[in-house]
Amino acid sequence: MNFAIIFYILGSVIKIEGILMLFPAAVAVIYREMSGIWFLLCAAACIVAGFLMSRKRPENCAFYAKEGFITVSLSWIVLSLIGALPFTLSGEIPFYIDGLFEIISGFTTTGSSILTDVEALSHCMLFWRSFSHWIGGMGVLVFVLAILPLAGAQNMYLMRTESPGPTFGKLVPKLQQSALFLYTIYFVMSGIELLFLLAGRMPLFDAVCTVFGTAGTGGFGIRNTSIAGYGTYLQAVITIFMFLFGVNFNFYFLIIIRRAKDAFRMEEVRWYFLIFSAAVLAIAVNLTSLSGHFFSNLHHAAFQVSSVMTTTGFATADFNQWPVFSRTILVLTMFIGACAGSTGGGIKVSRSIIYIKSTARELSMLIHPRSVKVLKTDGKAIDNGVIRSAGAFLMCYVLVFAVSVLLVSLDNMDPTTTFTAVAATINNIGPGLEQVGPTGNFSAFTPFSKLVLMFDMLAGRLEIFPMLLLFSPRTWKRN
Amino acid sequence: MNFAIIFYILGSVIKIEGILMLFPAAVAVIYREMSGIWFLLCAAACIVAGFLMSRKRPENCAFYAKEGFITVSLSWIVLSLIGALPFTLSGEIPFYIDGLFEIISGFTTTGSSILTDVEALSHCMLFWRSFSHWIGGMGVLVFVLAILPLAGAQNMYLMRTESPGPTFGKLVPKLQQSALFLYTIYFVMSGIELLFLLAGRMPLFDAVCTVFGTAGTGGFGIRNTSIAGYGTYLQAVITIFMFLFGVNFNFYFLIIIRRAKDAFRMEEVRWYFLIFSAAVLAIAVNLTSLSGHFFSNLHHAAFQVSSVMTTTGFATADFNQWPVFSRTILVLTMFIGACAGSTGGGIKVSRSIIYIKSTARELSMLIHPRSVKVLKTDGKAIDNGVIRSAGAFLMCYVLVFAVSVLLVSLDNMDPTTTFTAVAATINNIGPGLEQVGPTGNFSAFTPFSKLVLMFDMLAGRLEIFPMLLLFSPRTWKRN
Repeated sequence: MNFAIIFYILGSVIKIEGILMLFPAAVAVIYREMSGIWFLLCAAACIVAGFLMSRKRPENCAFYAKEGFITVSLSWIVLSLIGALPFTLSGEIPFYIDGLFEIISGFTTTGSSILTDVEALSHCMLFWRSFSHWIGGMGVLVFVLAILPLAGAQNMYLMRTESPGPTFGKLVPKLQQSALFLYTIYFVMSGIELLFLLAGRMPLFDAVCTVFGTAGTGGFGIRNTSIAGYGTYLQAVITIFMFLFGVNFNFYFLIIIRRAKDAFRMEEVRWYFLIFSAAVLAIAVNLTSLSGHFFSNLHHAAFQVSSVMTTTGFATADFNQWPVFSRTILVLTMFIGACAGSTGGGIKVSRSIIYIKSTARELSMLIHPRSVKVLKTDGKAIDNGVIRSAGAFLMCYVLVFAVSVLLVSLDNMDPTTTFTAVAATINNIGPGLEQVGPTGNFSAFTPFSKLVLMFDMLAGRLEIFPMLLLFSPRTWKRN
Repeated sequence: MNFAIIFYILGSVIKIEGILMLFPAAVAVIYREMSGIWFLLCAAACIVAGFLMSRKRPENCAFYAKEGFITVSLSWIVLSLIGALPFTLSGEIPFYIDGLFEIISGFTTTGSSILTDVEALSHCMLFWRSFSHWIGGMGVLVFVLAILPLAGAQNMYLMRTESPGPTFGKLVPKLQQSALFLYTIYFVMSGIELLFLLAGRMPLFDAVCTVFGTAGTGGFGIRNTSIAGYGTYLQAVITIFMFLFGVNFNFYFLIIIRRAKDAFRMEEVRWYFLIFSAAVLAIAVNLTSLSGHFFSNLHHAAFQVSSVMTTTGFATADFNQWPVFSRTILVLTMFIGACAGSTGGGIKVSRSIIYIKSTARELSMLIHPRSVKVLKTDGKAIDNGVIRSAGAFLMCYVLVFAVSVLLVSLDNMDPTTTFTAVAATINNIGPGLEQVGPTGNFSAFTPFSKLVLMFDMLAGRLEIFPMLLLFSPRTWKRN
């Protein structure tokens, strides 16, 4: 393990976090809030510490997969440990563990909250909370790559680890350029959403925070009623943009370089659209069979599926009150999640496709044992390594899930709360059902359960492996 | 597809079912119950039909994996369709779909019941219900193999499909001999349990039915209170025998041929024991922390873990009332299940070991991409085909599970009932939680949900693949 280079990159990450903290400080100035002072102090400390840590490039630049995994998981942990400070120092979230839960939920774009009254927070805190979604959505290390003159193997390993999904394809030959491209798409789309929201007369502060929540597929609201208080137009805009941020960004890239035909042929995006439409329709019909009002139900179903499937977690309706069939569909789309290469979480559509296809292959091999069939996606054969790694992912996922449910069940909440609290955090969604439903929150859990759920949020965002490797003794051996 | 040979084997299966139905007819004679007449009539019809179907051996004996899967799944379906007749013809279970649910639950050793009052049934019906566990536990086709002069490739394919678990090892070179061996162990252990139960002054009829339920890890009780009405000694005997029937039968075989050392070195059996002990202890401590009485809790915990982990499903306590931590442990052991090569269901301990080991290997390959590690169990390398097939099993299992939960959720029962109803049937356990808990039953579901759960029971018993292949168009192509 090359500790020097990890230390060096961590320094850059801390420096960047310091710079990012100047934004909520500016918000505090605008709204004349005293608590902004903590952002300034933290920012100053971060910039100094980060500068000292990354002052000198280490001589030994050996950097392999192992270093990549550990750098990413440590970076996210350090980011969160620092990011939680202003909440607690200002006293607005009295316990550090709650602040940590909130900021991890922010950076991992989960959106689960321990706050019982969101509106009690000052503007700068609300801004920082929502801003963390936007930062975490695209990934902090991808950002580091995009702006820092790091070169060589580090880039590949870091980017591969931080980007969600199994099929991270190179957009352009140079990774730094890819990162810049991704951020440009991210910026531009966020800007367009902002314009649409402002056109619907949403106040600027609300609009900015909502864009952060949508773009990062995070889901922190700044109102206790989440999105339910806004009008139908605004809700429709948010529905559409949640859906769009759940699309694989390669789709947009292909459109930009004028290969729209290839873009619309992307199997993952087609399936994403298909699953989305089927789920919306099924829920709308299910709700209508009970109460009528098809179009109003369609609106809420579209919003909620979009919100849950992309793992955003905004709410317009208390889906906790929906019939079990609709709730089951929501839970299933929770697990499927958004596209790979988007800002959303979950298992990912592309990985689900790999599961279905390789299952079908195994079944057909049972009856024709000597047939050889190659799995394909978008007309290209899927690498066997990708298939095996998707299998290992599923097993780790099930394992972490089961252990988490067991540990959280020590709190003796009802089974549905326990199960969906883990599902909502490991899939980076936000709300679950029952006590952690859209009108509830995570404040009732013990600190131990909160720690477990924080681990799950990080494991979900970083796709399990980096967090598990932190606990493997083999990882920490010096070579 | 060679339909002739499938038809021929189905004939033998039907003939055997006819003979087996003479037993409940005899019980009816002893208790002077008129409903026994239906068993006699069905038996006569089966023996005649079976004789006609299997009169002439087909000329084309081509028999491959495909024929093996289809023969097994069709046999189980036909067995159930016939086995449900006496219930409905006698009017004791008025609706045929309920009778079918009950007998599928019996043959698959699930033990889920649609009966609200078990004690209202006549003795011969109770006997048939429990007897079906004993028949289904070891497998009907293994029985066919053991007594019929079929030879050649059929045997291997049939036995491999019907025996639970991924590591079906040949006990002795000849398969027919293996089948006989297994049945002998099964008979002898059932006999020993019967003696122990009778020694505890359990009435003969109760004892025989309880042995059927234990040996097949089925779980139908003949009392409304399941096993709670019997004394501590009897409960302890049942605990021990449930555990013993969940052990891989190869273990007993090794002991019989005086290789006890190898038997006790069997990794699966060790893990089975370890998981069992850990679960019992954790639940006992959890219960004691709430109410005291450690030893009484240990007794109930041992009984319940033994019952759920081996997927038997007997109950002494209403574990629905237990704290969520204990319930979660029970649900987790539900999924792990018993050993391969036992009469129990679930995912199986050996398969779980494969998952854990291959996950660990994938993790270590992430940090040392060029290392090559061979998975071993009992000191021998695990065949790559076995690992891949275990992976495919997990995916199919998750898929069938998710689709089933979705379909059953249309009934709008609470989420825990819906989820555990599917878990209890696909893992062949019997009771779930809430409405389908140990004091509840499955009568409230709609016929559609009952069909889904029946499919799950069969899929669980036959380990998913044969039931899925029934629905593949490729299976039905004539070559």
